[in-house]
Amino acid sequence: MKSVNVPAITITRVSRYARNLALLDEKGVEIVSSARLADICGVNPAQIRKDLAYFGQFGIRGVGYYVKELLNETQKILGTDKRWHLGLVGVGNLGRALLRHAQFINEGYTYVAAFDKKPKRIGTRIGDIEVAPWEAINRLIKDKGAEVGVITVMPEQAQDAADMLVSSGVCGILNFAPIQLKCPAHVFVENVDFTLKLDLLCYRLNSDTSQGHRKRTK
Amino acid sequence: MKSVNVPAITITRVSRYARNLALLDEKGVEIVSSARLADICGVNPAQIRKDLAYFGQFGIRGVGYYVKELLNETQKILGTDKRWHLGLVGVGNLGRALLRHAQFINEGYTYVAAFDKKPKRIGTRIGDIEVAPWEAINRLIKDKGAEVGVITVMPEQAQDAADMLVSSGVCGILNFAPIQLKCPAHVFVENVDFTLKLDLLCYRLNSDTSQGHRKRTK
Repeated sequence: MKSVNVPAITITRVSRYARNLALLDEKGVEIVSSARLADICGVNPAQIRKDLAYFGQFGIRGVGYYVKELLNETQKILGTDKRWHLGLVGVGNLGRALLRHAQFINEGYTYVAAFDKKPKRIGTRIGDIEVAPWEAINRLIKDKGAEVGVITVMPEQAQDAADMLVSSGVCGILNFAPIQLKCPAHVFVENVDFTLKLDLLCYRLNSDTSQGHRKRTK
Repeated sequence: MKSVNVPAITITRVSRYARNLALLDEKGVEIVSSARLADICGVNPAQIRKDLAYFGQFGIRGVGYYVKELLNETQKILGTDKRWHLGLVGVGNLGRALLRHAQFINEGYTYVAAFDKKPKRIGTRIGDIEVAPWEAINRLIKDKGAEVGVITVMPEQAQDAADMLVSSGVCGILNFAPIQLKCPAHVFVENVDFTLKLDLLCYRLNSDTSQGHRKRTK
């Protein structure tokens, strides 16, 4: 069913379809036209068909998609029908935001451990999680079976955090620190780097202004 | 010098080059070989040449790049040689993390206003910024000349926040809420959506496991 040759951008769109299908399902919607689903997801209907074609045949011509069925299929594709366990390193504002706001996280994910270096943070609780010191990373990641590490420390601590997570058996890292982590080939790393997005945004605004389409307010 | 036809991925890499050049410059490094710069940025040297070729000729064969010169050029390309003013809506943990951690932000960006709906947050200060109510968005965005809006509210408030920012004259939005915003065509929107990244990570881990390359710990 799955192939590593599916482009990342396709997987990202499937993830967006899954999220919106879950919202429709919550609202009790049973069938959605491909035009409607495409509109909600911000793509065109042909794109949805093309993306899903990597994984099989879905939808009924002239009807659209059965919401619950396609939701289940997309979750199977993504692997989010399984439960994934996350260990977070760095309980500053960003780390706390991630731990607290369950609504930012899909159903398939559970935080099982959180770590920090600052003594005043160690032992505090955020939701169900008690913040542990870095020295406990190895033991707790193994004990709690965390497969994915989330790094929300300062840039200068990020590589150390990654090394400790990897040596504890984590094979996937979601990295919020604005540095390129060096990890062994068997470890998957995804970077969430909003300053790059901000640069892209301002490049576009700037190009647009240079071409006289728009005036900056100041 | 600029063209809107440059792929987003190229701009994102140029942004990464600029960031790493700034770090080298801070350390007093004057010349960097293309191999070294490529290694730091996690790309290959040919990629750097190809990306920069969109904008002109840089670097000296057999020597590499003059750090300060290439830093200036990349900042000009990105538009980060100008100062950009940001207005943030939603002063929860994530919003506070963004406002507080100047190190997450490049030199070209300054927060000039922050807004929230919760009475207990209004009037509080984060760094130099006093949190204002939503009703003040229109006035303050205009007064402070914010060109870019940053949305860190709950998903259900994100579209309202976007509408208010756009009607106040903002032409670029960095959106952290996991929804597709509907904005007029003249507004650039970039989404920072870490659940999509998390899904991509777990898809890869899952595919890898399915193919028997690795065992999940639990």
